Amino acid sequence: MTSVPDRSLEQLLQRWVDITALETAAGLASWDQETMMPAKGQPGRGAMLAGLAGLTHGLLTDPSLRESAEAVAEEAEPASIEAAHAHHALRAITRADAVPAGLTRHLAELRSRSLSSWQEARAANDLTVFQPDLTELVHATIEMADALVDAGIATSRYDALLDEYEPGARAGSLTDVLDDLVEQLVPLVQAVADSGRTVDESPWLVAADERRQEALAREMATLAGYDWEAGRMDPAAHPFTCGFGPGDVRITRRFEPDDLRPGLLGTLHEVGHALYEQGLPPELTGTPAGGAASLGVHESQSRLWENHVGRSLPFWSWAASRLAHHVPDTAGVSPEQLWAGLHPVRPSLVRVEADETTYNLHIAVRFRLELALFDGDVAVADLRDAWDESYEQLVGVRPANVADGVLQDIHWSMGAFGYFPTYTIGNLMAAQLFERLDADVGSVDGVLASGDLAPILGWLRDRIHRRASVLGADDLIEEATGTPLSARPLVDHLRRNLAAAYDLSV
Amino acid sequence: MTSVPDRSLEQLLQRWVDITALETAAGLASWDQETMMPAKGQPGRGAMLAGLAGLTHGLLTDPSLRESAEAVAEEAEPASIEAAHAHHALRAITRADAVPAGLTRHLAELRSRSLSSWQEARAANDLTVFQPDLTELVHATIEMADALVDAGIATSRYDALLDEYEPGARAGSLTDVLDDLVEQLVPLVQAVADSGRTVDESPWLVAADERRQEALAREMATLAGYDWEAGRMDPAAHPFTCGFGPGDVRITRRFEPDDLRPGLLGTLHEVGHALYEQGLPPELTGTPAGGAASLGVHESQSRLWENHVGRSLPFWSWAASRLAHHVPDTAGVSPEQLWAGLHPVRPSLVRVEADETTYNLHIAVRFRLELALFDGDVAVADLRDAWDESYEQLVGVRPANVADGVLQDIHWSMGAFGYFPTYTIGNLMAAQLFERLDADVGSVDGVLASGDLAPILGWLRDRIHRRASVLGADDLIEEATGTPLSARPLVDHLRRNLAAAYDLSV
Repeated sequence: MTSVPDRSLEQLLQRWVDITALETAAGLASWDQETMMPAKGQPGRGAMLAGLAGLTHGLLTDPSLRESAEAVAEEAEPASIEAAHAHHALRAITRADAVPAGLTRHLAELRSRSLSSWQEARAANDLTVFQPDLTELVHATIEMADALVDAGIATSRYDALLDEYEPGARAGSLTDVLDDLVEQLVPLVQAVADSGRTVDESPWLVAADERRQEALAREMATLAGYDWEAGRMDPAAHPFTCGFGPGDVRITRRFEPDDLRPGLLGTLHEVGHALYEQGLPPELTGTPAGGAASLGVHESQSRLWENHVGRSLPFWSWAASRLAHHVPDTAGVSPEQLWAGLHPVRPSLVRVEADETTYNLHIAVRFRLELALFDGDVAVADLRDAWDESYEQLVGVRPANVADGVLQDIHWSMGAFGYFPTYTIGNLMAAQLFERLDADVGSVDGVLASGDLAPILGWLRDRIHRRASVLGADDLIEEATGTPLSARPLVDHLRRNLAAAYDLSV
Repeated sequence: MTSVPDRSLEQLLQRWVDITALETAAGLASWDQETMMPAKGQPGRGAMLAGLAGLTHGLLTDPSLRESAEAVAEEAEPASIEAAHAHHALRAITRADAVPAGLTRHLAELRSRSLSSWQEARAANDLTVFQPDLTELVHATIEMADALVDAGIATSRYDALLDEYEPGARAGSLTDVLDDLVEQLVPLVQAVADSGRTVDESPWLVAADERRQEALAREMATLAGYDWEAGRMDPAAHPFTCGFGPGDVRITRRFEPDDLRPGLLGTLHEVGHALYEQGLPPELTGTPAGGAASLGVHESQSRLWENHVGRSLPFWSWAASRLAHHVPDTAGVSPEQLWAGLHPVRPSLVRVEADETTYNLHIAVRFRLELALFDGDVAVADLRDAWDESYEQLVGVRPANVADGVLQDIHWSMGAFGYFPTYTIGNLMAAQLFERLDADVGSVDGVLASGDLAPILGWLRDRIHRRASVLGADDLIEEATGTPLSARPLVDHLRRNLAAAYDLSV
C-alpha cells in the first residue's frame, strides 16, 4: 500500500470514467465512419466528434481534476500504478490546458471531414479534392503545436506532435536512429540488387476469392489467439485496429484478388495490435494507465506477428498445409518456396505493401517530409513534388500518380502528423522483443513449427500486454528484454533473412 | 422576426449541440450493440452508455441552460419555432432535474446489460437468464417514475413513463381508446372466424434465400424513396431504425426462410420510420425542436408504408412483376392473390407477425400488463403467468414457451416501459393520414398502381417530416388532416379490407 490519499485517487479514477466514456464513444464513431457510415453521414459525424472532443477538453481542463491528479502524484510511490495514473492524467491535462477548446473542437470536425475528402480524392486519384481540407488541417495542427510549444510541452512543433503518439520521443534522436538505419539498409538493398538474384513470388500470386481469403485470415487470427467473442473483422480501404476496452477490439482487412500476401500478413499485423488491446488488464480499463504504453510498442506487437511469425520458415513448415486447405492452388508448394516468396527486396511505391527491408525507407520519407512541413520548409501546395522527389532519392522509385504517392496513407487525413516514426520504432522493438522471446522460450522455431503459438502470446501477455502503460515505452522494452532499445536486432534479423533468401554474405 | 433575445436563443442552441453530440453518440453505441458489437463488449459498452447518460444529465441540469430556455420561452411568439425550441428544451431539463444523476447512469448501464441478457434468454427460451436484470430494471424504472411524479411531471408512474415517448399522452385516455378499439375489433375478428372462410396465404409461403429477399427489400426501400447514401441496412434479431441526423438513418431487417411477408413488410415498416428521419429539416439538426414529434407519429409513418402501401391491392397490381423478378417462384400469382394473402385474420402469439386487425389486441395486452406492473398489481416474478393469461383472454391463444411469450419483445430489456401504446396511436394516425392523403392527391390508388410513389412521400414530407417537432403530435395530426385524432379511419380501413377479403358485410 502506498500513502496516496485514497480520496484523491478515487476522485481521479471516478472522473476518468467519463473521460473514457467520451473517448471510447469517439473511437467507436471513428471506427464506424471508416467501416459503416453512409456518405451523407459525414457532416453529422463531424459535429458529433467535435462535440465529444469539446466535452472531453472540458473535463480535462476542470481545475479540480488537476488537483486530484497532483495530489496523487505527490504521494504515490515511484514506479507504482498510482504514480502511473497521475503521470498519464497530468500529461493529458497539460496537453488539454495548452490548447483552446475551440481549436480542439475545430480539429475534431476537420479530421472527420478530411477523412471523407481524402477517401474521395484517393478513389478519384485527384489531390485537388483533398488539398483544401489538408491545407486547413495542417494550418490548425500548426496552431495546436505552437500552443503546445508555448505551454512548454516540447521545444519544437514536431516534437509536440510526436509526443502525443510516442511520449518522450524527440525528432532529434529519431533523426539519428532513422539516418543510422537508412545507412545500414541502403547497402543491404544494394547488395540484393547487385547480386542479380530475385526470389520467386509466384507461389503467392494466386487468384483466390474473398471467401477463401477470409477463411484463411480467420484461421490465422484464431491461431495467434485472437478472441472472436471480444472482436470482429470487417473490410476497410486502409486496414486498422480499434479497441474499446479488452472486451471489444475490432480488426479490419483488405484482400488483393491475385496476391495472398497482403491479406494474410495484413491480418496478422492487425491481430498483433488486437492481441495487445485484448490483453490489457481488465481491472485497469478506463483508468489513466490502462492503455497501451505507446504507438511504438503497439506497432512492435503488430510487426512481431506479421514479420517474425508470419514471414518465418518454421511457421510455414507447419502452416503450408493450412494454406493449401483454404487455397488448393497452393498445394504442393514447399514451406521453403513460401518463405522465399515472402522475402522480395524491391524498391516500391506503397508503404503497406513494402518488403521488410525497404519498409523503413518509406518511413524516412514521411518523417523528413513532416519535419519540413512543420518547420515551414515545405508548403502543402508543394507536398506532392516533395513526396515524389523524396521517393526517388530515398527509395529509388517515382510515383506515377497521387493515389500511389502522396495520397496513399490515411494518416494525414486524420490529422495524425508525427505518427509515422512510431512504425520504425515498432520495427526496432519487435526485433528486440523477438530475440529475447526466443531466448526465454528455449526455441521459438520449435514453437512456430508446432502450430501451437500459445507460448508466444503468453510471453507477450506477460512482458508487454499486462503492463499496460505502468511504464513508459523505453522502460517497458528494457524491462522486457533486459537491454535498452537498439537497432542491432532488427538489422541482424534482416541480414539473416537476406543472406538465406539471396545466398549473400551481408 | 420575434422579439426573443438572440443571445439566449444562441446560447440555448449552442449548448444543445453538445447534448446532441452525446445523444447521437449514445444512439450509435446502441445501434452498434444490437448489430455489430461482440458479446464480450457489453460491460465496456454499459460503462460507456452510463458515462454518456451522466454527462448528458450534467449538461441538462446546468442552471444556465434552464435560464437560457426560460428566457427564450418568455419572449418567443406562440407557435413559433423558437417557442418549440424552448418547450422541448424545458421538457428535457425538467425531466433531468427530477431524476438524480446516479440513477440516470445506473439505468443506462442496466439497459445495456439487460439487452444482452434478454438476447441470451430469448435464444435459450429461458426467462430465468433475464429475470434478475428485468427485476432490477423495473425497480430502477419505478424509482425514476416516482421521482418524475414527485417533480409534478405526471400524476402516476405510468403517465410519467408514457410521457417520455408520447408527450402529453395519459393512461386514462389511452385506456378509453384501447377499450373502444378492442370492443370494435373483437367482433370483426369473430365475424371472420364465424364465416369459416380463410384467405390463401400460400403465394407468400415461398422458400427464398437471403440474397433474393435482400434484393427485393432493397428495391422496395428504393421505391419508397429511401436514400441509400444517407443510410444502410443490416441484419438484426429485432428490426429497428436508428437515425443520427437526416444524413445517416439506418434500417435493419430480418428475413424468414419460407415466408416472404415478414421481410418485405418489415422493411417497408422500417423504411417508413427512416423516411421520416431522412426528411427532418437539416437546418434544425441538433436543435431541441429538430426531432420527430412523438413515437406515435413515428409509428404512423412506418405503419402507413407497411399497411396502407405494402398491403394494398393497387400497389401489388404494379409490384407483382417486381416480386416475380426477384422471386421467380411467385411468377403467375395475380395481384389479387398476393393481396388476399396479406390479409389473414388469425389470433396469434407474436406481435410483429400479427395481422393488421389483431395487432392492436397485442398492444392492449402489453398496455394492461405495464399498467399493472407499475401500479404494483403484478410482480416481475408473476409476469409470465399474467402474460399468458392475458393472451388467452384478449387474443384467444396461450404461448407454449417464453420466447414466443413474455420474452418476444426487445422493449422491456431496453427499459422502454410505456412505449407500446405508441404503436396503437401510430396505427390510428396512419389511417387518418392516409385518408387525407388520398383526398389530397386525388386518387392514391392511381399513385400506388403507377409504381411512382413520390407523391406519397412528397405529401408526408410536406405535412409531417418537415414540421419536425414544431407542433405537438395531436396538433400536428390535426394540422395535417384537418380533424382531431380519431379511431374511425382505422376501423373503416380494417372493415373495408375484411369485407373484401372475406366477402363479409362487417
